[in-house]
Amino acid sequence: MVQSVQRAVQILRELSTSGPRLGVTELADRLGVAKPTVHALLRTLEGEGLVVQDRESAKYQLGPALVGLGNAYLDTQELRTRSLTWADLLATRAGEAVWVGVLTGDHVLVVHHAFRPEGAVQILEVGASIPWSTCALGKAVAAFAPEAERRRLLAGDLAVLTGASITDAAVLNSQLEQVRGTGYALEDQESALGDAGIAAPVFGRSGEVVGAIGVVGPVERLLAESARQDIAVAVRETARNLSRDLGAPRGGARGAGV
Amino acid sequence: MVQSVQRAVQILRELSTSGPRLGVTELADRLGVAKPTVHALLRTLEGEGLVVQDRESAKYQLGPALVGLGNAYLDTQELRTRSLTWADLLATRAGEAVWVGVLTGDHVLVVHHAFRPEGAVQILEVGASIPWSTCALGKAVAAFAPEAERRRLLAGDLAVLTGASITDAAVLNSQLEQVRGTGYALEDQESALGDAGIAAPVFGRSGEVVGAIGVVGPVERLLAESARQDIAVAVRETARNLSRDLGAPRGGARGAGV
Repeated sequence: MVQSVQRAVQILRELSTSGPRLGVTELADRLGVAKPTVHALLRTLEGEGLVVQDRESAKYQLGPALVGLGNAYLDTQELRTRSLTWADLLATRAGEAVWVGVLTGDHVLVVHHAFRPEGAVQILEVGASIPWSTCALGKAVAAFAPEAERRRLLAGDLAVLTGASITDAAVLNSQLEQVRGTGYALEDQESALGDAGIAAPVFGRSGEVVGAIGVVGPVERLLAESARQDIAVAVRETARNLSRDLGAPRGGARGAGV
Repeated sequence: MVQSVQRAVQILRELSTSGPRLGVTELADRLGVAKPTVHALLRTLEGEGLVVQDRESAKYQLGPALVGLGNAYLDTQELRTRSLTWADLLATRAGEAVWVGVLTGDHVLVVHHAFRPEGAVQILEVGASIPWSTCALGKAVAAFAPEAERRRLLAGDLAVLTGASITDAAVLNSQLEQVRGTGYALEDQESALGDAGIAAPVFGRSGEVVGAIGVVGPVERLLAESARQDIAVAVRETARNLSRDLGAPRGGARGAGV
Protein backbone atom coordinates (compact mmCIF):
# COMPACT_ATOMS: atom_id res chain seq x y z
CA MET A 1 0.00 0.00 0.00
CA VAL A 2 1.21 3.47 -0.81
CA GLN A 3 0.75 5.52 2.36
CA SER A 4 0.65 8.98 0.77
CA VAL A 5 -2.12 7.86 -1.59
CA GLN A 6 -4.10 6.41 1.31
CA ARG A 7 -3.74 9.70 3.17
CA ALA A 8 -4.77 11.71 0.12
CA VAL A 9 -7.95 9.63 -0.17
CA GLN A 10 -8.53 10.05 3.58
CA ILE A 11 -8.43 13.83 3.05
CA LEU A 12 -11.08 13.53 0.31
CA ARG A 13 -13.24 11.43 2.60
CA GLU A 14 -12.93 13.88 5.49
CA LEU A 15 -13.94 16.72 3.20
CA SER A 16 -16.94 14.74 1.92
CA THR A 17 -18.22 13.70 5.35
CA SER A 18 -17.04 16.38 7.83
CA GLY A 19 -16.61 19.22 5.31
CA PRO A 20 -17.59 21.12 3.28
CA ARG A 21 -14.49 23.18 4.19
CA LEU A 22 -11.58 22.22 6.40
CA GLY A 23 -8.27 23.94 7.11
CA VAL A 24 -4.82 22.37 7.16
CA THR A 25 -4.74 22.22 10.97
CA GLU A 26 -8.17 20.58 11.22
CA LEU A 27 -7.20 17.97 8.63
CA ALA A 28 -3.85 17.31 10.30
CA ASP A 29 -5.66 16.69 13.60
CA ARG A 30 -8.21 14.34 12.04
CA LEU A 31 -5.61 12.34 10.14
CA GLY A 32 -3.03 12.37 12.93
CA VAL A 33 -0.42 13.55 10.45
CA ALA A 34 2.01 16.50 10.58
CA LYS A 35 0.77 19.77 9.07
CA PRO A 36 3.51 20.06 6.40
CA THR A 37 2.59 16.58 5.13
CA VAL A 38 -1.09 17.48 4.91
CA HIS A 39 -0.20 20.72 3.20
CA ALA A 40 1.86 18.95 0.54
CA LEU A 41 -0.97 16.46 -0.08
CA LEU A 42 -3.52 19.27 -0.39
CA ARG A 43 -1.37 21.19 -2.85
CA THR A 44 -1.02 18.06 -4.97
CA LEU A 45 -4.75 17.33 -4.88
CA GLU A 46 -5.40 20.99 -5.73
CA GLY A 47 -3.09 20.76 -8.74
CA GLU A 48 -5.20 17.84 -9.98
CA GLY A 49 -8.52 19.62 -9.40
CA LEU A 50 -9.63 17.15 -6.73
CA VAL A 51 -9.73 19.87 -4.06
CA VAL A 52 -9.97 23.65 -4.29
CA GLN A 53 -8.96 26.29 -1.79
CA ASP A 54 -11.59 28.81 -0.76
CA ARG A 55 -10.17 32.29 -1.36
CA GLU A 56 -11.74 33.97 1.63
CA SER A 57 -11.19 31.39 4.36
CA ALA A 58 -8.09 29.70 2.88
CA LYS A 59 -9.79 26.39 3.77
CA TYR A 60 -10.04 23.47 1.38
CA GLN A 61 -13.08 21.78 -0.15
CA LEU A 62 -13.72 19.06 -2.72
CA GLY A 63 -12.99 19.97 -6.34
CA PRO A 64 -14.97 19.71 -9.58
CA ALA A 65 -12.73 17.05 -11.16
CA LEU A 66 -14.37 14.52 -8.83
CA VAL A 67 -17.68 14.91 -10.68
CA GLY A 68 -16.04 13.95 -13.96
CA LEU A 69 -14.50 10.85 -12.38
CA GLY A 70 -17.79 9.89 -10.74
CA ASN A 71 -19.61 10.21 -14.06
CA ALA A 72 -16.92 8.23 -15.84
CA TYR A 73 -17.53 5.44 -13.33
CA LEU A 74 -21.28 5.53 -13.97
CA ASP A 75 -20.68 5.36 -17.70
CA THR A 76 -18.69 2.15 -17.27
CA GLN A 77 -21.87 0.58 -15.91
CA GLU A 78 -23.52 -1.04 -18.90
CA LEU A 79 -26.56 -1.64 -16.69
CA ARG A 80 -26.96 2.13 -16.35
CA THR A 81 -26.66 3.02 -20.02
CA ARG A 82 -28.97 0.21 -21.07
CA SER A 83 -31.54 1.07 -18.43
CA LEU A 84 -32.30 4.66 -19.51
CA THR A 85 -35.17 3.85 -21.87
CA TRP A 86 -36.55 1.00 -19.77
CA ALA A 87 -36.55 3.12 -16.61
CA ASP A 88 -38.40 5.89 -18.41
CA LEU A 89 -41.03 3.50 -19.73
CA LEU A 90 -41.51 1.96 -16.30
CA ALA A 91 -41.83 5.39 -14.67
CA THR A 92 -44.53 6.29 -17.17
CA ARG A 93 -46.35 2.98 -16.77
CA ALA A 94 -46.28 3.03 -12.97
CA GLY A 95 -46.61 6.80 -12.59
CA GLU A 96 -43.79 6.64 -10.05
CA ALA A 97 -40.05 7.25 -9.79
CA VAL A 98 -37.74 4.43 -10.87
CA TRP A 99 -34.32 3.56 -9.50
CA VAL A 100 -31.65 1.30 -10.94
CA GLY A 101 -29.03 0.03 -8.49
CA VAL A 102 -25.94 -2.14 -8.20
CA LEU A 103 -24.58 -3.86 -5.13
CA THR A 104 -21.22 -2.53 -3.93
CA GLY A 105 -20.06 -4.11 -0.68
CA ASP A 106 -23.18 -4.25 1.49
CA HIS A 107 -24.82 -1.15 -0.01
CA VAL A 108 -26.90 -0.54 -3.09
CA LEU A 109 -25.55 2.31 -5.22
CA VAL A 110 -28.25 4.09 -7.23
CA VAL A 111 -26.79 4.41 -10.75
CA HIS A 112 -29.89 5.74 -12.50
CA HIS A 113 -33.02 7.58 -11.41
CA ALA A 114 -35.98 8.27 -13.68
CA PHE A 115 -38.23 10.87 -12.14
CA ARG A 116 -41.89 10.38 -11.43
CA PRO A 117 -43.62 11.70 -14.58
CA GLU A 118 -45.73 14.17 -12.62
CA GLY A 119 -45.31 15.65 -9.23
CA ALA A 120 -43.45 18.09 -7.11
CA VAL A 121 -39.73 18.92 -7.14
CA GLN A 122 -37.70 15.73 -7.01
CA ILE A 123 -34.12 15.43 -5.90
CA LEU A 124 -31.88 13.29 -8.02
CA GLU A 125 -30.78 10.23 -6.10
CA VAL A 126 -28.05 9.01 -8.43
CA GLY A 127 -25.06 8.25 -6.23
CA ALA A 128 -27.15 7.54 -3.16
CA SER A 129 -25.94 4.53 -1.24
CA ILE A 130 -28.46 2.45 0.74
CA PRO A 131 -27.89 -0.56 3.04
CA TRP A 132 -28.90 -3.60 0.99
CA SER A 133 -31.25 -5.12 3.56
CA THR A 134 -33.39 -1.99 3.85
CA CYS A 135 -34.45 -1.57 0.23
CA ALA A 136 -36.24 -3.58 -2.45
CA LEU A 137 -33.32 -3.18 -4.88
CA GLY A 138 -30.90 -4.73 -2.38
CA LYS A 139 -33.20 -7.63 -1.57
CA ALA A 140 -33.82 -8.32 -5.26
CA VAL A 141 -30.06 -8.58 -5.88
CA ALA A 142 -29.34 -10.57 -2.72
CA ALA A 143 -32.09 -13.09 -3.46
CA PHE A 144 -30.49 -14.00 -6.79
CA ALA A 145 -26.83 -13.59 -5.78
CA PRO A 146 -24.60 -16.67 -5.55
CA GLU A 147 -25.12 -18.62 -2.33
CA ALA A 148 -21.77 -17.55 -0.82
CA GLU A 149 -22.44 -13.87 -1.49
CA ARG A 150 -25.90 -14.12 0.05
CA ARG A 151 -24.49 -15.80 3.14
CA ARG A 152 -21.86 -13.04 3.45
CA LEU A 153 -24.57 -10.36 3.24
CA LEU A 154 -26.81 -12.07 5.80
CA ALA A 155 -23.88 -12.57 8.19
CA GLY A 156 -22.91 -8.90 8.08
CA ASP A 157 -24.32 -5.99 10.06
CA LEU A 158 -27.97 -5.42 9.15
CA ALA A 159 -28.62 -1.67 9.17
CA VAL A 160 -31.37 -0.08 11.25
CA LEU A 161 -32.81 2.99 9.51
CA THR A 162 -36.40 2.83 10.79
CA GLY A 163 -38.39 0.74 13.25
CA ALA A 164 -39.34 -1.46 10.29
CA SER A 165 -35.76 -2.30 9.22
CA ILE A 166 -35.26 -6.05 9.44
CA THR A 167 -32.38 -7.07 11.69
CA ASP A 168 -33.12 -10.77 12.04
CA ALA A 169 -31.08 -12.66 9.42
CA ALA A 170 -33.53 -15.61 9.50
CA VAL A 171 -36.51 -13.38 8.73
CA LEU A 172 -34.59 -11.69 5.96
CA ASN A 173 -33.48 -15.04 4.55
CA SER A 174 -37.06 -16.27 4.32
CA GLN A 175 -38.02 -13.00 2.58
CA LEU A 176 -35.27 -13.65 0.02
CA GLU A 177 -36.68 -17.13 -0.54
CA GLN A 178 -40.07 -15.53 -1.27
CA VAL A 179 -38.39 -13.11 -3.67
CA ARG A 180 -36.97 -16.06 -5.58
CA GLY A 181 -40.51 -17.43 -5.80
CA THR A 182 -42.31 -14.28 -6.95
CA GLY A 183 -39.49 -12.64 -8.91
CA TYR A 184 -39.78 -9.33 -7.09
CA ALA A 185 -38.81 -7.82 -3.73
CA LEU A 186 -40.71 -5.40 -1.50
CA GLU A 187 -39.68 -2.67 0.90
CA ASP A 188 -42.25 -1.48 3.41
CA GLN A 189 -40.77 1.63 5.07
CA GLU A 190 -37.55 -0.17 5.98
CA SER A 191 -35.21 2.59 4.76
CA ALA A 192 -37.43 5.63 5.34
CA LEU A 193 -40.78 6.19 7.03
CA GLY A 194 -43.57 6.48 4.49
CA ASP A 195 -41.51 5.09 1.59
CA ALA A 196 -41.96 1.79 -0.17
CA GLY A 197 -40.29 0.00 -3.06
CA ILE A 198 -40.90 -2.85 -5.48
CA ALA A 199 -37.86 -4.17 -7.38
CA ALA A 200 -36.79 -7.06 -9.58
CA PRO A 201 -33.34 -8.44 -10.38
CA VAL A 202 -31.50 -7.75 -13.63
CA PHE A 203 -29.23 -10.40 -15.14
CA GLY A 204 -26.16 -10.17 -17.36
CA ARG A 205 -24.58 -12.14 -20.17
CA SER A 206 -23.69 -15.21 -18.13
CA GLY A 207 -26.99 -15.24 -16.27
CA GLU A 208 -25.46 -13.65 -13.15
CA VAL A 209 -27.38 -10.93 -11.29
CA VAL A 210 -25.85 -7.52 -12.12
CA GLY A 211 -28.27 -5.21 -10.31
CA ALA A 212 -31.94 -4.40 -9.93
CA ILE A 213 -34.57 -2.01 -11.18
CA GLY A 214 -37.57 -0.89 -9.19
CA VAL A 215 -40.23 1.62 -8.37
CA VAL A 216 -40.02 3.83 -5.28
CA GLY A 217 -42.75 5.99 -3.78
CA PRO A 218 -45.15 6.57 -0.90
CA VAL A 219 -46.28 3.40 0.82
CA GLU A 220 -49.95 4.44 0.42
CA ARG A 221 -49.64 4.45 -3.38
CA LEU A 222 -47.24 1.54 -3.91
CA LEU A 223 -48.43 -1.09 -1.47
CA ALA A 224 -52.17 -0.47 -1.68
CA GLU A 225 -53.93 -3.74 -2.48
CA SER A 226 -55.14 -2.30 -5.81
CA ALA A 227 -51.79 -1.00 -7.10
CA ARG A 228 -49.20 -3.42 -5.79
CA GLN A 229 -49.90 -6.30 -8.13
CA ASP A 230 -49.92 -4.13 -11.27
CA ILE A 231 -46.69 -2.38 -10.31
CA ALA A 232 -45.00 -5.69 -9.46
CA VAL A 233 -45.89 -7.10 -12.86
CA ALA A 234 -44.62 -3.96 -14.62
CA VAL A 235 -41.37 -4.02 -12.63
CA ARG A 236 -40.76 -7.70 -13.34
CA GLU A 237 -41.44 -7.32 -17.05
CA THR A 238 -39.14 -4.32 -17.27
CA ALA A 239 -36.36 -6.16 -15.43
CA ARG A 240 -36.73 -9.07 -17.84
CA ASN A 241 -36.56 -6.82 -20.91
CA LEU A 242 -33.53 -4.99 -19.53
CA SER A 243 -31.84 -8.33 -18.80
CA ARG A 244 -32.37 -9.44 -22.40
CA ASP A 245 -30.91 -6.11 -23.57
CA LEU A 246 -27.83 -6.94 -21.51
CA GLY A 247 -27.54 -10.28 -23.24
CA ALA A 248 -28.92 -12.44 -20.44
CA PRO A 249 -29.96 -15.94 -21.51
CA ARG A 250 -33.71 -16.62 -21.47
CA GLY A 251 -33.42 -18.57 -18.26
CA GLY A 252 -31.83 -15.50 -16.67
CA ALA A 253 -34.67 -14.83 -14.30
CA ARG A 254 -34.42 -18.31 -12.84
CA GLY A 255 -37.27 -19.07 -10.53
CA ALA A 256 -38.92 -15.75 -11.23
CA GLY A 257 -42.09 -17.70 -11.89
CA VAL A 258 -43.48 -15.09 -14.26
CA MET B 1 3.98 17.94 -4.87
CA VAL B 2 3.63 14.33 -3.80
CA GLN B 3 4.57 12.22 -6.82
CA SER B 4 2.76 9.03 -5.84
CA VAL B 5 -0.49 10.96 -5.39
CA GLN B 6 -0.06 12.61 -8.79
CA ARG B 7 0.48 9.21 -10.36
CA ALA B 8 -2.55 7.75 -8.59
CA VAL B 9 -4.70 10.56 -9.99
CA GLN B 10 -3.14 10.00 -13.42
CA ILE B 11 -4.28 6.38 -13.24
CA LEU B 12 -7.84 7.49 -12.47
CA ARG B 13 -7.74 9.90 -15.41
CA GLU B 14 -6.44 7.22 -17.78
CA LEU B 15 -9.24 4.90 -16.70
CA SER B 16 -11.83 7.64 -17.19
CA THR B 17 -10.65 8.69 -20.65
CA SER B 18 -8.97 5.64 -22.22
CA GLY B 19 -10.74 2.98 -20.13
CA PRO B 20 -13.12 1.54 -19.18
CA ARG B 21 -10.69 -1.29 -18.32
CA LEU B 22 -6.91 -1.24 -18.41
CA GLY B 23 -4.32 -3.75 -17.25
CA VAL B 24 -1.19 -3.08 -15.20
CA THR B 25 1.05 -3.24 -18.28
CA GLU B 26 -1.10 -0.84 -20.31
CA LEU B 27 -1.16 1.64 -17.43
CA ALA B 28 2.59 1.34 -16.84
CA ASP B 29 3.18 2.12 -20.52
CA ARG B 30 0.87 5.13 -20.52
CA LEU B 31 2.33 6.58 -17.33
CA GLY B 32 5.94 5.72 -18.13
CA VAL B 33 6.28 4.13 -14.72
CA ALA B 34 7.53 0.67 -13.68
CA LYS B 35 4.93 -2.07 -13.39
CA PRO B 36 5.49 -2.83 -9.69
CA THR B 37 4.89 0.87 -8.89
CA VAL B 38 1.65 0.91 -10.88
CA HIS B 39 0.59 -2.31 -9.22
CA ALA B 40 1.14 -0.88 -5.73
CA LEU B 41 -0.82 2.26 -6.63
CA LEU B 42 -3.69 0.18 -8.05
CA ARG B 43 -3.86 -2.01 -4.96
CA THR B 44 -4.03 1.10 -2.79
CA LEU B 45 -6.74 2.70 -4.92
CA GLU B 46 -8.62 -0.61 -4.87
CA GLY B 47 -8.45 -0.72 -1.08
CA GLU B 48 -10.10 2.70 -1.03
CA GLY B 49 -12.83 1.74 -3.52
CA LEU B 50 -11.59 4.19 -6.16
CA VAL B 51 -10.81 1.38 -8.61
CA VAL B 52 -12.06 -2.19 -8.86
CA GLN B 53 -10.51 -5.18 -10.54
CA ASP B 54 -12.60 -7.06 -13.06
CA ARG B 55 -12.68 -10.70 -12.03
CA GLU B 56 -12.63 -12.19 -15.51
CA SER B 57 -10.01 -10.04 -17.25
CA ALA B 58 -7.99 -9.03 -14.12
CA LYS B 59 -8.01 -5.50 -15.57
CA TYR B 60 -8.84 -2.43 -13.53
CA GLN B 61 -11.70 0.06 -13.88
CA LEU B 62 -12.99 3.05 -11.91
CA GLY B 63 -14.69 2.26 -8.60
CA PRO B 64 -18.03 3.25 -7.05
CA ALA B 65 -16.51 5.39 -4.28
CA LEU B 66 -15.87 8.06 -6.93
CA VAL B 67 -19.60 8.62 -7.32
CA GLY B 68 -19.94 9.40 -3.63
CA LEU B 69 -17.08 11.89 -3.79
CA GLY B 70 -18.49 13.52 -6.93
CA ASN B 71 -21.89 13.90 -5.27
CA ALA B 72 -20.30 15.29 -2.13
CA TYR B 73 -18.66 17.95 -4.32
CA LEU B 74 -21.99 18.82 -5.94
CA ASP B 75 -23.60 19.15 -2.51
CA THR B 76 -20.97 21.71 -1.50
CA GLN B 77 -22.32 23.90 -4.30
CA GLU B 78 -24.91 26.10 -2.65
CA LEU B 79 -25.89 27.26 -6.15
CA ARG B 80 -26.96 23.71 -6.96
CA THR B 81 -29.01 23.04 -3.84
CA ARG B 82 -30.73 26.42 -4.07
CA SER B 83 -31.46 26.01 -7.76
CA LEU B 84 -33.55 22.82 -7.60
CA THR B 85 -36.94 24.49 -7.22
CA TRP B 86 -36.14 27.41 -9.53
CA ALA B 87 -34.87 25.13 -12.27
CA ASP B 88 -38.03 23.05 -12.06
CA LEU B 89 -40.25 26.11 -12.28
CA LEU B 90 -38.29 27.45 -15.24
CA ALA B 91 -38.46 24.08 -17.03
CA THR B 92 -42.24 24.08 -16.58
CA ARG B 93 -42.61 27.70 -17.68
CA ALA B 94 -40.41 27.34 -20.77
CA GLY B 95 -41.38 23.77 -21.55
CA GLU B 96 -37.69 23.01 -22.05
CA ALA B 97 -34.77 21.47 -20.17
CA VAL B 98 -32.87 23.71 -17.74
CA TRP B 99 -29.18 23.60 -16.85
CA VAL B 100 -27.34 25.23 -13.98
CA GLY B 101 -23.59 25.63 -14.40
CA VAL B 102 -20.47 26.95 -12.71
CA LEU B 103 -17.23 28.04 -14.34
CA THR B 104 -14.23 25.83 -13.51
CA GLY B 105 -11.09 26.84 -15.39
CA ASP B 106 -12.28 27.57 -18.92
CA HIS B 107 -15.17 25.10 -18.87
CA VAL B 108 -18.70 25.24 -17.58
CA LEU B 109 -19.55 22.31 -15.30
CA VAL B 110 -23.25 21.42 -15.33
CA VAL B 111 -24.19 21.01 -11.64
CA HIS B 112 -27.94 20.63 -12.07
CA HIS B 113 -30.23 19.54 -14.88
CA ALA B 114 -34.02 19.79 -14.76
CA PHE B 115 -35.57 17.71 -17.49
CA ARG B 116 -37.93 19.05 -20.10
CA PRO B 117 -41.40 18.43 -18.62
CA GLU B 118 -42.56 16.43 -21.61
CA GLY B 119 -40.67 14.63 -24.28
CA ALA B 120 -38.59 11.65 -25.13
CA VAL B 121 -35.91 9.93 -23.07
CA GLN B 122 -33.46 12.49 -21.78
CA ILE B 123 -29.93 11.84 -20.64
CA LEU B 124 -28.85 13.50 -17.45
CA GLU B 125 -26.13 16.03 -18.17
CA VAL B 126 -24.99 16.71 -14.60
CA GLY B 127 -21.22 16.52 -14.65
CA ALA B 128 -20.93 17.50 -18.30
CA SER B 129 -18.14 19.97 -18.95
CA ILE B 130 -18.48 22.44 -21.84
CA PRO B 131 -15.98 25.02 -23.16
CA TRP B 132 -17.21 28.38 -21.80
CA SER B 133 -17.22 30.23 -25.13
CA THR B 134 -19.49 27.70 -26.83
CA CYS B 135 -22.50 27.85 -24.50
CA ALA B 136 -24.91 30.44 -23.15
CA LEU B 137 -24.11 29.50 -19.54
CA GLY B 138 -20.41 30.22 -20.09
CA LYS B 139 -21.04 33.53 -21.83
CA ALA B 140 -23.45 34.64 -19.10
CA VAL B 141 -20.79 34.00 -16.44
CA ALA B 142 -17.94 35.51 -18.45
CA ALA B 143 -19.90 38.68 -19.20
CA PHE B 144 -20.32 39.41 -15.50
CA ALA B 145 -16.97 38.03 -14.27
CA PRO B 146 -14.34 40.45 -12.94
CA GLU B 147 -12.45 42.21 -15.74
CA ALA B 148 -9.21 40.25 -15.15
CA GLU B 149 -11.01 36.91 -15.28
CA ARG B 150 -12.79 37.89 -18.49
CA ARG B 151 -9.53 38.93 -20.10
CA ARG B 152 -7.96 35.58 -19.08
CA LEU B 153 -10.86 33.69 -20.65
CA LEU B 154 -10.75 35.69 -23.89
CA ALA B 155 -6.96 35.28 -24.14
CA GLY B 156 -7.17 31.49 -23.79
CA ASP B 157 -7.87 28.88 -26.45
CA LEU B 158 -11.39 29.28 -27.82
CA ALA B 159 -12.80 25.83 -28.52
CA VAL B 160 -14.19 24.82 -31.92
CA LEU B 161 -17.04 22.34 -31.55
CA THR B 162 -19.10 23.28 -34.61
CA GLY B 163 -18.76 25.61 -37.58
CA ALA B 164 -20.64 28.20 -35.52
CA SER B 165 -18.24 28.20 -32.56
CA ILE B 166 -16.80 31.69 -32.15
CA THR B 167 -13.02 31.80 -32.28
CA ASP B 168 -12.48 35.54 -32.69
CA ALA B 169 -11.91 37.06 -29.23
CA ALA B 170 -13.06 40.49 -30.43
CA VAL B 171 -16.40 39.14 -31.68
CA LEU B 172 -16.87 37.23 -28.44
CA ASN B 173 -15.97 40.30 -26.40
CA SER B 174 -18.62 42.39 -28.13
CA GLN B 175 -21.16 39.61 -27.51
CA LEU B 176 -20.29 39.75 -23.81
CA GLU B 177 -20.87 43.50 -23.87
CA GLN B 178 -24.33 42.86 -25.32
CA VAL B 179 -24.97 40.28 -22.60
CA ARG B 180 -24.20 42.93 -19.97
CA GLY B 181 -26.77 45.14 -21.68
CA THR B 182 -29.61 42.63 -22.03
CA GLY B 183 -28.92 40.48 -18.98
CA TYR B 184 -28.92 37.22 -20.91
CA ALA B 185 -26.63 35.26 -23.23
CA LEU B 186 -27.45 33.22 -26.33
CA GLU B 187 -25.95 30.15 -27.92
CA ASP B 188 -26.84 29.45 -31.54
CA GLN B 189 -25.49 25.94 -32.32
CA GLU B 190 -22.01 26.82 -31.08
CA SER B 191 -21.54 23.67 -28.99
CA ALA B 192 -23.71 21.24 -30.96
CA LEU B 193 -25.50 21.40 -34.28
CA GLY B 194 -29.21 22.00 -33.81
CA ASP B 195 -28.91 23.06 -30.15
CA ALA B 196 -29.45 26.50 -28.70
CA GLY B 197 -29.33 28.04 -25.25
CA ILE B 198 -30.48 31.13 -23.38
CA ALA B 199 -28.86 31.77 -19.99
CA ALA B 200 -28.54 34.47 -17.35
CA PRO B 201 -25.95 35.02 -14.62
CA VAL B 202 -26.53 34.14 -10.96
CA PHE B 203 -24.95 36.25 -8.23
CA GLY B 204 -23.86 35.45 -4.68
CA ARG B 205 -23.71 37.21 -1.34
CA SER B 206 -21.11 39.78 -2.25
CA GLY B 207 -22.64 40.47 -5.65
CA GLU B 208 -20.07 38.32 -7.46
CA VAL B 209 -21.17 36.03 -10.29
CA VAL B 210 -21.29 32.42 -9.03
CA GLY B 211 -22.72 30.63 -12.05
CA ALA B 212 -25.58 30.74 -14.52
CA ILE B 213 -28.96 29.17 -15.18
CA GLY B 214 -30.47 28.69 -18.60
CA VAL B 215 -32.73 26.85 -20.98
CA VAL B 216 -31.33 24.43 -23.58
CA GLY B 217 -33.14 22.91 -26.52
CA PRO B 218 -33.55 22.70 -30.30
CA VAL B 219 -32.67 25.94 -32.10
CA GLU B 220 -36.04 25.87 -33.91
CA ARG B 221 -37.97 26.08 -30.65
CA LEU B 222 -35.67 28.33 -28.60
CA LEU B 223 -34.55 30.98 -31.07
CA ALA B 224 -37.75 31.32 -33.08
CA GLU B 225 -38.77 35.01 -33.14
CA SER B 226 -41.96 34.16 -31.23
CA ALA B 227 -40.41 32.16 -28.37
CA ARG B 228 -37.02 33.75 -27.79
CA GLN B 229 -38.21 36.89 -26.04
CA ASP B 230 -40.52 35.03 -23.64
CA ILE B 231 -37.90 32.47 -22.74
CA ALA B 232 -35.27 35.18 -22.21
CA VAL B 233 -37.55 37.03 -19.81
CA ALA B 234 -38.34 33.81 -17.90
CA VAL B 235 -34.63 32.92 -17.70
CA ARG B 236 -33.66 36.37 -16.47
CA GLU B 237 -36.38 36.46 -13.84
CA THR B 238 -35.44 33.00 -12.61
CA ALA B 239 -31.76 33.96 -12.38
CA ARG B 240 -32.70 37.04 -10.38
CA ASN B 241 -34.86 35.05 -7.94
CA LEU B 242 -32.16 32.43 -7.51
CA SER B 243 -29.58 35.18 -6.88
CA ARG B 244 -31.76 36.67 -4.13
CA ASP B 245 -32.10 33.20 -2.62
CA LEU B 246 -28.32 33.05 -2.50
CA GLY B 247 -28.21 36.35 -0.64
CA ALA B 248 -27.20 38.57 -3.56
CA PRO B 249 -27.75 42.29 -2.99
CA ARG B 250 -30.50 43.89 -5.09
CA GLY B 251 -27.97 45.48 -7.41
CA GLY B 252 -26.57 41.97 -8.03
CA ALA B 253 -27.64 41.81 -11.64
CA ARG B 254 -25.78 45.01 -12.44
CA GLY B 255 -26.54 46.28 -15.88
CA ALA B 256 -29.06 43.53 -16.49
CA GLY B 257 -31.45 46.28 -17.55
CA VAL B 258 -34.52 44.30 -16.59
